Amino acid sequence: MSSIAVVGSGGVGGLYGAMLAAAGHEVHFLVRSAAEEIRRRGWIVESVWGDLRIDNPLVHEDVSSMPPCDYLIVALKSTENAQLARLLPPLTHASTTAIVLQNGLHVEEATEAAIGPGRTIGGCCFLCSNKIAPGHIRHLDYGRIELGGYAGQRADAKTSEAKVDAVAEMLAAAKVPIDVSRDLYTTRWRKLMWNIPFNGLSVALDASTTEIMADSQARQLAEDIMREVEEAAGACGAAIDADHVARMMEHTEKMVPYDSSMRLDYLAGRPMELDYIYARPLRDAAHAGVRPRKIEMLHQQLRFFGKRSGEQRAASDEKGK
Amino acid sequence: MSSIAVVGSGGVGGLYGAMLAAAGHEVHFLVRSAAEEIRRRGWIVESVWGDLRIDNPLVHEDVSSMPPCDYLIVALKSTENAQLARLLPPLTHASTTAIVLQNGLHVEEATEAAIGPGRTIGGCCFLCSNKIAPGHIRHLDYGRIELGGYAGQRADAKTSEAKVDAVAEMLAAAKVPIDVSRDLYTTRWRKLMWNIPFNGLSVALDASTTEIMADSQARQLAEDIMREVEEAAGACGAAIDADHVARMMEHTEKMVPYDSSMRLDYLAGRPMELDYIYARPLRDAAHAGVRPRKIEMLHQQLRFFGKRSGEQRAASDEKGK
Repeated sequence: MSSIAVVGSGGVGGLYGAMLAAAGHEVHFLVRSAAEEIRRRGWIVESVWGDLRIDNPLVHEDVSSMPPCDYLIVALKSTENAQLARLLPPLTHASTTAIVLQNGLHVEEATEAAIGPGRTIGGCCFLCSNKIAPGHIRHLDYGRIELGGYAGQRADAKTSEAKVDAVAEMLAAAKVPIDVSRDLYTTRWRKLMWNIPFNGLSVALDASTTEIMADSQARQLAEDIMREVEEAAGACGAAIDADHVARMMEHTEKMVPYDSSMRLDYLAGRPMELDYIYARPLRDAAHAGVRPRKIEMLHQQLRFFGKRSGEQRAASDEKGK
Repeated sequence: MSSIAVVGSGGVGGLYGAMLAAAGHEVHFLVRSAAEEIRRRGWIVESVWGDLRIDNPLVHEDVSSMPPCDYLIVALKSTENAQLARLLPPLTHASTTAIVLQNGLHVEEATEAAIGPGRTIGGCCFLCSNKIAPGHIRHLDYGRIELGGYAGQRADAKTSEAKVDAVAEMLAAAKVPIDVSRDLYTTRWRKLMWNIPFNGLSVALDASTTEIMADSQARQLAEDIMREVEEAAGACGAAIDADHVARMMEHTEKMVPYDSSMRLDYLAGRPMELDYIYARPLRDAAHAGVRPRKIEMLHQQLRFFGKRSGEQRAASDEKGK
């Protein structure tokens, strides 16, 4: 059994951490608040896969009380990645491996910078899961993770396949559906095919995926943007299967009405994860000589909305004082 | 002195019609309602150029009571252009000339179709003026018109320069600041340089021109779109002066906070003038082999917003019954 630190105990980290704890691992959860209450009450997961409760969970409000661990699950919002330089080193020993379960391109960079090269694995999570209270997770649908070794910009620093396989085995043994990717960069781009159009348009059009798919203009725009992601990915060397756009659109057509996490963040006045979902892909595309105009415009609009929402938040915080 | 029919007696038609009436012409105003009240009270213009009141104005709620006139001022919303086929023929005699004071590309087409080729003049109006009640206009700023003969798709059917000069003279004598353009198509494109970015973004970003100019992202997006208009215009054979983008941006920087007419229409639940401001320019650009992606995306978003707003209007009309 291994020791595991969960940094960011929300819908993603809180679910997979609990599954690993239920499988017998020593799992330490880093939470924002209510540690004492969670310890007393237990770590609760309501899940489509069956409910879980971890009694006497190891819960911490600060990394100072956490030990160095064999594995780190990095699952906080990527808007907080600047904190990783402070949070991760105390949790790291000589053979620690980090598993970055965040969305976007090069989202592993901050983790790798904090703990050194060759020990970071990235994972794309396909799931609907939310934290409904501290230490209380509601897992609504899906749940698969696609894992791969992170290489950063240096191929010689790529995390070994053996490390990836060990993590895949540990998670699979804890009943997490796992796929292993030998090309994390392409896997990340493939996930962005959906996130770039639908996360952003749900904010810019103030609309659910169902409303977007039901309107011919909005749907065409989503598809145009998805095609731009496909083209940018290709230019960056990430080959997307020829029928992926059609399959994604069809899949979205059949989804239940869904508010993307970006829209939920925006509506709640929280910062949106724009850096790794928009800025980095646009930067890689630019290096590859491609300029996807509709993605660029969506990013410009989202930054405008995010800034205005931040200013309104600051103004109402000020008023509340 | 001439007879003039004003079709669309709002901020534009109601102002220039009153100036022509004050200069001694026989001006017939077509209004939606309150004709009797306006006749009793007089046609009122509050203007930065000095207030005007036309006593005993010739006001009609239907074209059936209006005579054929020497000139038609077409100034209703271009979203109602389908009505011109019915409204204009009864107002037209053998030597009638129409003056189309609407925004957008090929906006003269419906007028030309209604009254025949070679007798339509287009005018770009640069002004801030609103109808605040039936027969009551408030003219806030600017007021220049740039006039040119309309040719449609057939150069041989172009309205003669002599007709344009006669109209320019009549309006100038009524104290309207007039410029004559020998290339109406380029004049229309030049006006679109401002309308395409700022009308649309004021709706898509839910922001005034001041808010757009104050945010680096929104401002850059406005400029990107303006550059796309410049490029499309050039491809269509309309040469825009090299420093026009810089001058427009600088001019907008200095404007007082201004809600575009498109934003006012959208906020009031009225249809937006998308056909002649977006669809036609995009169509001409496509024929010229250019595909301006950000303009196209803005148009897609505006059609989505317009449709949703129309559905909400229909639903609330239904509820009101």
